[in-house]
Parts: sequence; structure tokens; C-alpha cells
Amino acid sequence: MEKSFSFEDIMQLPSRYRANLINMVSGVKPANLIGTKSKTGHTNLAVFNSVVHIGANPPYLGFILRPTTVERHTYENIKETGVYTINQITTAIHKKAHQTSAKYDREVSEFDAVGLTEHYQNDFHAPFVAESPIKIGLSFQEEQLISCNDTRLVIGKIEHLILPETAILEDGDVALEKLDTAAVAGLYNYYKPKHLGKYGYQKP
Amino acid sequence: MEKSFSFEDIMQLPSRYRANLINMVSGVKPANLIGTKSKTGHTNLAVFNSVVHIGANPPYLGFILRPTTVERHTYENIKETGVYTINQITTAIHKKAHQTSAKYDREVSEFDAVGLTEHYQNDFHAPFVAESPIKIGLSFQEEQLISCNDTRLVIGKIEHLILPETAILEDGDVALEKLDTAAVAGLYNYYKPKHLGKYGYQKP
Repeated sequence: MEKSFSFEDIMQLPSRYRANLINMVSGVKPANLIGTKSKTGHTNLAVFNSVVHIGANPPYLGFILRPTTVERHTYENIKETGVYTINQITTAIHKKAHQTSAKYDREVSEFDAVGLTEHYQNDFHAPFVAESPIKIGLSFQEEQLISCNDTRLVIGKIEHLILPETAILEDGDVALEKLDTAAVAGLYNYYKPKHLGKYGYQKP
Repeated sequence: MEKSFSFEDIMQLPSRYRANLINMVSGVKPANLIGTKSKTGHTNLAVFNSVVHIGANPPYLGFILRPTTVERHTYENIKETGVYTINQITTAIHKKAHQTSAKYDREVSEFDAVGLTEHYQNDFHAPFVAESPIKIGLSFQEEQLISCNDTRLVIGKIEHLILPETAILEDGDVALEKLDTAAVAGLYNYYKPKHLGKYGYQKP
């Protein structure tokens, strides 16, 4: 049996039920940790499921930022210092990564609170996650304020990209399944993606 | 051995290699088909890996649109009619779904070309994909032009949400693994996500 919800039906659902349902229906998303450090040296780490590809030439990534407490620390640090990191969550660290979604005080570093390790690359100010096989250092490029609900699309330019050499294939593709990559859906469901196939360019 | 690329290193990579690498490193993404129909009745179907959650109350979804031929048909139809559909790709249809990325002429419907079935809900103008277990009908809400590379974030309001009643859990969560949901990474790698766990709200 199919269940059909209209816009009005969705608006009348209980708030938590609606949040779960709407967060799930767009599918399984990338699981990443965003790392930042304030000017005064407080580090912050937060789980995000909204990282999107914006472009490869030049290399840009985006993510959606909601106006919540946890994410505000991330945003403030990015605006203060101009840099942040995106670090891939693996199945090995996915429980620790999810724990960063708790509302810690700004003085508490989520790195310490959940047991993940800060890693620094040369003089890049923002902390990488040592346990992440794919570590991306970005500089703030632009933001778009979304009028309909005051969320923001934050876009960064890739300044550093660090990953295991053995996972990079001849054509530049990355064998994510070798890296134990995790994925996330909704607010708190985690997945391990199993590779089905690679299909190349399609012609009519 | 870790391989480290700076921005300058990335800019000097061969174009196709760079596109593969940068598209992969942000992780495994949701696999969706966007369905549209022009005013004159031509239907279009295109695979997108950039659907993001924008908000649940009211329910908004976004996606990133690059200025390519295939996606331009999608964009033109959305601007012309104000409506479109987002349809979840399953492992059962992922090869057909990927085939929509070929550059068909506007007169050719990707539904016919790849063998997927148009489904209409009441008087909603845009076609749903009958084979998709999660079908979402949206009305165009707003778009943000991204300055750094002229891509767009297109945001729609959910007008219709159709999914199997048995996949909806008591708390509004959706058992995606029961629906044979597929995921995608890079330009042409597909995955089947295996559920690892559900962890609820976290407290410090």
C-alpha cells in the first residue's frame, strides 16, 4: 500500500515525526565531519550530512548550515578564520562522529569529548581528523542565504586534499569501499555502502 | 602512504582525472531521478547526485544544477511549469537511471529511451517514476546563483510525497534498506547501502 502525503498533510504531522520523515526521503547522504578552530584556539568538530559537489575546476564543495547551536560554532569559526576541514566518516568512527551532534559548550572540544584526534597540515589553521582517510582543507569562498527558511549554503575552495595513495585509481576515481566510507540518512541512521558497479559515460 | 594535493596541484591535474577525483572525495551521495515535462508535453528524466535537505517545516529540498545540456532541459521545464519530481533510484533500476545521463535530444523522452514508466498523481503536471518507491512532487520555490562557478542551487517545496506505508516506522523514519535504495559517488559509481545502526539524539 502506498501512502500519499500532500503539503498540508506534512504540515499537520507531529514535529519530530515530520523531521524524521522529510530528512529520510531524499536518500542516503555523505557522512562528513567539519573541523574548525576559533582565533583563540578552541577547536570544534561537527557531523554534517549535507556536503555537495559544486565544481571540480576550480575545486569547490558546499554544505548547508542550519541555525542551530552546534553548527553556529562551526559557522563562527569559519567566518573568523576563513578556513575549515571536511573529513570523511568511516564505519570505524561513525559512532564517535555521531556523538559530535550533542550540544557541547564552546569551551569543550568535540575532538576530546568523543575521542578523535586533531591533525594539522603545515600551517593550515583548521584541524583535520587524523582517523579520517579523506581529509579536505578548504578556504571560505562564498555563502548564499536561502530566503525560504534562513539556512545557508556555504561554499569553500579546496586548498588541501589528503588521501591514501593506494585508494586512487588510474582515472582519478577513488575506491571509497576500500576506505571503509560510511554514509548517513535522516538524522541518525548510518550505512556502509557496498559497491555495485561503475558505468562510465553514457551515450544515447 | 598518504598523497597530498594542494590547490595548485589539483589545478594542474588532467581535466577528466580531476573531475573524477573531486567528485569522489566528498563521499557517497543520494541517487535520484528528476522528472519534468515541458508545457508542450515533452517529458524529461535526469539522474542527480546533489539532492540536499533544506528543511522539514516547511518541507524543502534542494539540488545543484550545472550548466550542461541534459540538466538544462530539466531547468527549462522547471522554470516553464513551476513543478518537478524527485524519485529515488533503487539498485533494481540503477543502470536504467544512469543511462538518463546520456545526451538525448529534447524530443526524446528519457523515460522511453531507458525503459522507465511515467506515473501521474492527480493533476500534478510533472511525471513521477513508477518504479521508484519514494516519489516526491515539488513546486519551484527559489534559486540561488552561485557566483564562483555559475552553478545554481534550486529549491522546491514538497507538494506530494508518496512512499510504501510499510516502510514508514513509528517515529516517521523510513526503512530505506527495505526499499532497495541505491546511492552514488563520483560521476558513475553506484552503491547499495547496508544499515549499520540508528543512534538517536546525543547528549554531552
